Amino acid sequence: MVRVLIVYASDHGSTEKMAKALADGVKSVEDSIAELVKADDARIEHLLSCDALVIGTPVHMGSIDWRVKKFIDTVCSGAWMQDKLIGKVGAVFASGSGYGNGGGGCELAMLSVLNNIAELGLLIVPLPKKTPGYKVAGLQWGPYGRAHAEDLSPKGLSDDQLVSSKHHGMHIARVANILKDAQIFE
Amino acid sequence: MVRVLIVYASDHGSTEKMAKALADGVKSVEDSIAELVKADDARIEHLLSCDALVIGTPVHMGSIDWRVKKFIDTVCSGAWMQDKLIGKVGAVFASGSGYGNGGGGCELAMLSVLNNIAELGLLIVPLPKKTPGYKVAGLQWGPYGRAHAEDLSPKGLSDDQLVSSKHHGMHIARVANILKDAQIFE
Amino acid sequence: MVRVLIVYASDHGSTEKMAKALADGVKSVEDSIAELVKADDARIEHLLSCDALVIGTPVHMGSIDWRVKKFIDTVCSGAWMQDKLIGKVGAVFASGSGYGNGGGGCELAMLSVLNNIAELGLLIVPLPKKTPGYKVAGLQWGPYGRAHAEDLSPKGLSDDQLVSSKHHGMHIARVANILKDAQIFE
Amino acid sequence: MVRVLIVYASDHGSTEKMAKALADGVKSVEDSIAELVKADDARIEHLLSCDALVIGTPVHMGSIDWRVKKFIDTVCSGAWMQDKLIGKVGAVFASGSGYGNGGGGCELAMLSVLNNIAELGLLIVPLPKKTPGYKVAGLQWGPYGRAHAEDLSPKGLSDDQLVSSKHHGMHIARVANILKDAQIFE
Repeated sequence: MVRVLIVYASDHGSTEKMAKALADGVKSVEDSIAELVKADDARIEHLLSCDALVIGTPVHMGSIDWRVKKFIDTVCSGAWMQDKLIGKVGAVFASGSGYGNGGGGCELAMLSVLNNIAELGLLIVPLPKKTPGYKVAGLQWGPYGRAHAEDLSPKGLSDDQLVSSKHHGMHIARVANILKDAQIFE
Repeated sequence: MVRVLIVYASDHGSTEKMAKALADGVKSVEDSIAELVKADDARIEHLLSCDALVIGTPVHMGSIDWRVKKFIDTVCSGAWMQDKLIGKVGAVFASGSGYGNGGGGCELAMLSVLNNIAELGLLIVPLPKKTPGYKVAGLQWGPYGRAHAEDLSPKGLSDDQLVSSKHHGMHIARVANILKDAQIFE
Repeated sequence: MVRVLIVYASDHGSTEKMAKALADGVKSVEDSIAELVKADDARIEHLLSCDALVIGTPVHMGSIDWRVKKFIDTVCSGAWMQDKLIGKVGAVFASGSGYGNGGGGCELAMLSVLNNIAELGLLIVPLPKKTPGYKVAGLQWGPYGRAHAEDLSPKGLSDDQLVSSKHHGMHIARVANILKDAQIFE
Repeated sequence: MVRVLIVYASDHGSTEKMAKALADGVKSVEDSIAELVKADDARIEHLLSCDALVIGTPVHMGSIDWRVKKFIDTVCSGAWMQDKLIGKVGAVFASGSGYGNGGGGCELAMLSVLNNIAELGLLIVPLPKKTPGYKVAGLQWGPYGRAHAEDLSPKGLSDDQLVSSKHHGMHIARVANILKDAQIFE
């Protein structure tokens, strides 16, 4: 049994929708359970008991949401100092308004998360372009849901935009199952 | 009179279209001329005689086009070593297919360019969201033209998508005029 | 008279030392005053009354400190929504332990800040390599003070490592004076 | 048997030294062979027959060497278009002069490579801080060898600075062995 921990913050529900779709993908894989925890509530115990850590963030001002960063600075940092998560699996997803047709900073927001994930020593699962749903909600680093239309009206995420998150969850759970108990890093 | 040098590479013409629109913006500002040079043809003399350097790149595999990088590594590097361009003005623009609705790496491609521009010591002109045309071809780092539709059919850049480039050219020329002959860096 | 606002967070005093050195540089330029405000205390009024915004952050887990990000998400974002700071001047600095000889994520931390600065529409002042003190505390994006020795003993910042911050402050104040009242963005 | 392909460019030999150390690490793992290929010589056949792709680059002007980018744009792109490498293993390393004590752009250079690696759909192996040799040649994204002293004299890489590369090679080979023939991505 592998446990995939999904930590996220959400303003208007889009990141949460993606988190739930990702959890559905995890649960569709044999021997895999998903645990959804809001960034404000996540504790080091959640980290220590998981096999994979997935972090989801709204895109704010071109980078990570401050509540997600607070979780990283105050919770993940302790696990990092003590090398507690090395060799587990990591991934990222994000939602945003996508102001300006170029993603509005979604890539740097995801990299702000991935930098932490790399520091923790997690194997990173990217999102290949052939993943179902990639065209409407994908970036190579992970699922990206653009919640606003081009004219910035808040249309919300469609079901189509949740498909890539679900498949990302499946990929992550499979990698976590394969790597479980592996000795990679001395 | 200020001279704005625009160096670019282009595969199917989109980056070139943006370069020309940006040049039009430059020329619409008093006392300002634009010089368009392909990356393969750019020489250090072009750099030494300009007041502003604008670099345009197609997005390839999530970062800068290799021809643009060759220009940076083999031409700009010499000017950098000798501190020749410090205090001039710099900016970036990019075009891409935008595979995957999150910009397909456009942001890191632009930052690959901006890293060079920062090393050269150029004052960086960003693209504010209120710039005309931002919604359909803008990122905070500069104009970004997505040349494909969501289903990846190659629709090309529309006239609407060139408006932000033109205005970026105007902003750059204005800054170059104001900073001309200024003593900023000792 | 130009007002340079320096917003920062600090854990053990290194970022604060850099902030003060930067302020000294600002004040050494004619017609320039510096205002130091901790991220927790910064309000939108500080932003509206400044001519240049400089943000300093400790490097935590490879990106921006969460308190600085909270300032950006909850204070800067309002000014961004209303296009209130466009055409002002912006810059960044950071301190960190530099775990691992490659800067330990200092570059992405600085870019997390600069993404916000670009979105606000600020002209970005980089740090050219010929700046005094660059060798011991410089990155092209701005001053970077590594507060730990290679063996990670907390040696603190030396006076040498504050020189680049002071000169960055001088550069920023000069640019702010030149651009004051300029009409760049329509 | 897994095959780890190491593609790199090198100016003065530092990146090549790291490539060879990484290959030594690969070969020390059971059932693992390493293949060293210069970027100019790498062909799509090399990519198709490998189980892991490791790309090494000198840091030039804050990002990837243009010869490495040419390999990515002209060789990797074909494999990407056809989804040929999805589910393999990927990693990065870099060497540079480290001008300025903050790594001189090493992080964005590594991310320029990783963006390609993520697009190819490779599982990314980071470098945890407890890896032997991390303190003198490590960044969370992979080994980083700073070839110059602080005063920029070209001291070259010491043996100590090659240790993290060797261990990175061991980690990569182990992951490649575990993931071989796994079905992760549908």
